[in-house]
Amino acid sequence: MVDFIYGHWAVMETLRAGRRSVEQLLLAENVEERGMVGQITALAKERGIRIQRMPRRIIDDLADGANHQNTVLRAGPYPYSDTEDILALAQQRGEKPFILILDLLKDPQNAGVLLRVAESVGIHGVLIQERRSVEVTPSVVNASSGAVEFLHVAQVNNLVNAMKELKEQNVWIIGLEAGDDLLPIDKTDLNISLGLVLGSEGEGMRRLVRDTCDLLLTLPMRGHLASLNVATAGSIALYAAWQARGWEGWK
Amino acid sequence: MVDFIYGHWAVMETLRAGRRSVEQLLLAENVEERGMVGQITALAKERGIRIQRMPRRIIDDLADGANHQNTVLRAGPYPYSDTEDILALAQQRGEKPFILILDLLKDPQNAGVLLRVAESVGIHGVLIQERRSVEVTPSVVNASSGAVEFLHVAQVNNLVNAMKELKEQNVWIIGLEAGDDLLPIDKTDLNISLGLVLGSEGEGMRRLVRDTCDLLLTLPMRGHLASLNVATAGSIALYAAWQARGWEGWK
Repeated sequence: MVDFIYGHWAVMETLRAGRRSVEQLLLAENVEERGMVGQITALAKERGIRIQRMPRRIIDDLADGANHQNTVLRAGPYPYSDTEDILALAQQRGEKPFILILDLLKDPQNAGVLLRVAESVGIHGVLIQERRSVEVTPSVVNASSGAVEFLHVAQVNNLVNAMKELKEQNVWIIGLEAGDDLLPIDKTDLNISLGLVLGSEGEGMRRLVRDTCDLLLTLPMRGHLASLNVATAGSIALYAAWQARGWEGWK
Repeated sequence: MVDFIYGHWAVMETLRAGRRSVEQLLLAENVEERGMVGQITALAKERGIRIQRMPRRIIDDLADGANHQNTVLRAGPYPYSDTEDILALAQQRGEKPFILILDLLKDPQNAGVLLRVAESVGIHGVLIQERRSVEVTPSVVNASSGAVEFLHVAQVNNLVNAMKELKEQNVWIIGLEAGDDLLPIDKTDLNISLGLVLGSEGEGMRRLVRDTCDLLLTLPMRGHLASLNVATAGSIALYAAWQARGWEGWK
């Protein structure tokens, strides 16, 4: 399996993170090696990675028509982690687990935004389900500005079972849902061992996933619209949780 | 001046808000009047708005190639407000002013996301500069899911002067900026008369705008990336401010 990672930040952070095997850095024929491209090529040389010039239309094909900024990395598959890695990272940092759980998210753009914010708040890891959900594709890497290359993402066979296993490890599972009859996100102390669950676009959490949560919380809304995009709502909730944890690990 | 508002939610909310003159609802030839389209046509009929069927390629042209979901509204220009309207709304609600100030934002998608969140937290209004900044175009209306139709947006000639005028009205002007040496957003009580300033994509606030702020605050970040997208960071800050205001006006 080969991934073609595209876009300046995605390529840069994949090289920086250094978790994937990287075969080649591909640059469009006429691009000058300065600015971000200069930094990327310098880093590639440092890592002994071969740099290859290509006609732009081949780069277009490799990036599947996406906005590749003339820069593509031919790399090994995304290195998924498992739940143990996530809990081990929390323990190693001496922190209460802080885990993001995505129930059947579909849109790579939403997933990328969420993973970028998850990395910013120091999430120990992310759980996604193996089937019927977004995977860490190059477009997710791109939408996360490469942040996902630094994260533990675990693909689990059955999300409900994985949630139950976390509960056995004393992690509280809290689901975010739209609804005026729910408690707002700041009414419970989120400075706990926390698994935050987000539902899919439009449909929210599946019933069994919702029923497995210890508690449901909501983002208050006072305008005319019924709900926010899941990437926006999830980003706000992640920051609210980190704020409750006293910005642990900042500076 | 005529605007062609496109997309289900944008069209629906423009009709619901009822602030623009609306000439026609244009539907693609083969679209059935059910689901969202059914609701939209029912609302249009209620308002006595003419409904016209069109070949899809004409709809494509009117929406400038964007994802119009077969639904376009031919409407009058966006009804801009001014600073007085914004302050009057705060007074009418009996609330301390809560204002969003955008310094030369460029991207309609970012602006739309921010305006949608601004509407959700009950912002009294938004200031943008007349030139070199995004305006409330149909693509902004679309990206905001129509939320901007319910908001007071004031286009001001000079943003710095407008900020100074707000300060004379006892509004505190707080700028959001990336930087580890700044106070985090929860270290100041945001339950005040507040103007929250966001900089442009990539470049942040202009020097004079920054210098006019009473205080700069930051969103903490502990990951490998230096900053978040302005729409994400601004959404988080808007919610942090509303949380500090005790979810005033919710339910």
